[in-house]
Amino acid sequence: MSDRLKCVLVVGLGLIGGSFARAVKMRGLADRVVGYDLNPQECQLGLQLGVIDEQAEDLLQAAAEADLVMLAVPVKATEALLETLAPVLKPGTLLTDVGSTKMNIIEAGQRVFGNLPACFVPGHPIAGAEKSGVQASNAHLFERHKVILTPLPETDASAVSRLASLWQALGADVLQMTPQRHDEVLAATSHLPHILAFSLVDTLAHEEQNKDIFRYAAGGFRDFTRIAASDPVMWHDICQANRDALLSQIDQFTTGLARLREAIDQGDSQTLLGIFTRARVAREYFSTLLSGTAYELKPAARSETPTAEPVPSQGE
Amino acid sequence: MSDRLKCVLVVGLGLIGGSFARAVKMRGLADRVVGYDLNPQECQLGLQLGVIDEQAEDLLQAAAEADLVMLAVPVKATEALLETLAPVLKPGTLLTDVGSTKMNIIEAGQRVFGNLPACFVPGHPIAGAEKSGVQASNAHLFERHKVILTPLPETDASAVSRLASLWQALGADVLQMTPQRHDEVLAATSHLPHILAFSLVDTLAHEEQNKDIFRYAAGGFRDFTRIAASDPVMWHDICQANRDALLSQIDQFTTGLARLREAIDQGDSQTLLGIFTRARVAREYFSTLLSGTAYELKPAARSETPTAEPVPSQGE
Repeated sequence: MSDRLKCVLVVGLGLIGGSFARAVKMRGLADRVVGYDLNPQECQLGLQLGVIDEQAEDLLQAAAEADLVMLAVPVKATEALLETLAPVLKPGTLLTDVGSTKMNIIEAGQRVFGNLPACFVPGHPIAGAEKSGVQASNAHLFERHKVILTPLPETDASAVSRLASLWQALGADVLQMTPQRHDEVLAATSHLPHILAFSLVDTLAHEEQNKDIFRYAAGGFRDFTRIAASDPVMWHDICQANRDALLSQIDQFTTGLARLREAIDQGDSQTLLGIFTRARVAREYFSTLLSGTAYELKPAARSETPTAEPVPSQGE
Repeated sequence: MSDRLKCVLVVGLGLIGGSFARAVKMRGLADRVVGYDLNPQECQLGLQLGVIDEQAEDLLQAAAEADLVMLAVPVKATEALLETLAPVLKPGTLLTDVGSTKMNIIEAGQRVFGNLPACFVPGHPIAGAEKSGVQASNAHLFERHKVILTPLPETDASAVSRLASLWQALGADVLQMTPQRHDEVLAATSHLPHILAFSLVDTLAHEEQNKDIFRYAAGGFRDFTRIAASDPVMWHDICQANRDALLSQIDQFTTGLARLREAIDQGDSQTLLGIFTRARVAREYFSTLLSGTAYELKPAARSETPTAEPVPSQGE
């Protein structure tokens, strides 16, 4: 950021909020990092662990003093929080969030504010871990991970730039796309795989005779089901927040699976080999992308993606 | 084995056959380990790498001399191989295989021999890797992995015991079940997850607008699609070999997914939380099993499984 931050307020000291606070502190990007959590014990723990500099006694007063307010609360809690904060936010305060769905956050903002405030830049760091809580927070969590920003046409361009620079300073690779596209992409690459994993494990565990099936599980199954250990409440909320995009992805998948089932049933070798080979090629292409982005920034590769332009760093 | 093996013939020096040969040699369990492969270069490489002691010049002569013949060839090649070997196998020769489906191997044996020979003990080591070929073979591949034997009522019990002891000597955890149950279990825990992964990656890659979706893939997706990199031809063959059990598993899964889709569509929180929580509990139970079997043998846990009795080691 060209202007050093005076006061950053992080509302919600979970894994993501705590890691953001830690990262900003570790890199000395703000004079004060203030934390607030509905659970005062998490906040005190954050103070003890050095995740934050101060614990906010009064949320409204802290929000009024902050030049950046980061909302790191469950998606369902965002609307009520915006209503609480709306009266005290200064016009220049940069407001952002980390919700894993974006259309519903924007709709919540529109219900609260009418139009989304120009200084509200919705965001989503694609980073997470199986652990949760401030105890698990990690200042390096966002390094080499993607952060997607989803501004609207009315969003202030300089607010987007300032936020992008901050995330880049934390080591993240910042991309920008419409909130609709974000929700489609996440439905396909994260929400659908989780739903399939939950459904597979639940289906197998459903029948008494299957109790011992888990005992013989081969490698493929382990990979597949690891993600079914995720938090049920969080996934319940995601299913509601991104319902339409997720239903559309489930329907596409179901159609594809039915096509594959038909080929197995009919012994249609050509279709089977076609599907398996295309999947392998796509996966290999994907692996190349992943190995590239995990270890280095690849501006050339990024420019191939017309629907998701990287946000230029102010420092570049 | 109470009787030391004089001559082991391994037909097919791929990853599994090569690793079996290496493991028998490393542990000094046979006087001679002889290898045969349709591709003479693989066989010569096996000789150079010390995977085998000798390369069989004449398959029939080598089979006539062997007291253990291990068939480690693709499932589809097994019937022709059994026809070739049938005239020369000595009655006391222990014959086994490593095919990942068992009913079709047994049916192939019945077509060749009439009744399955008493000394043919079908087997399946649940071990594999993304690599293939004799170059990738590894003497430790089977350690702490499961080997499932699927004898028929007419199979010689002492042949089963001898083979079980050999696999145990290679570090494997040997279980026994009917070939039908084996094929059901593998359809559920290995073949279905692979089919879902292939189908997911193919469905996402299918549409032009999805080309860039892979770029944003979050953690869940990576786990999920890693297994879609498997060999298309092998999976084509498995889909034919285990067709009925696999179709049944796909149908169960599709029904379960439709139930979950309905709950998302209707915003049915109770059903969603029920499915996600059951899946998480099942997965955690499964993790406990896995962590147990990965590091230690757990006879108490094994005895909970009425349909799959462990085969006692002759040495116990």
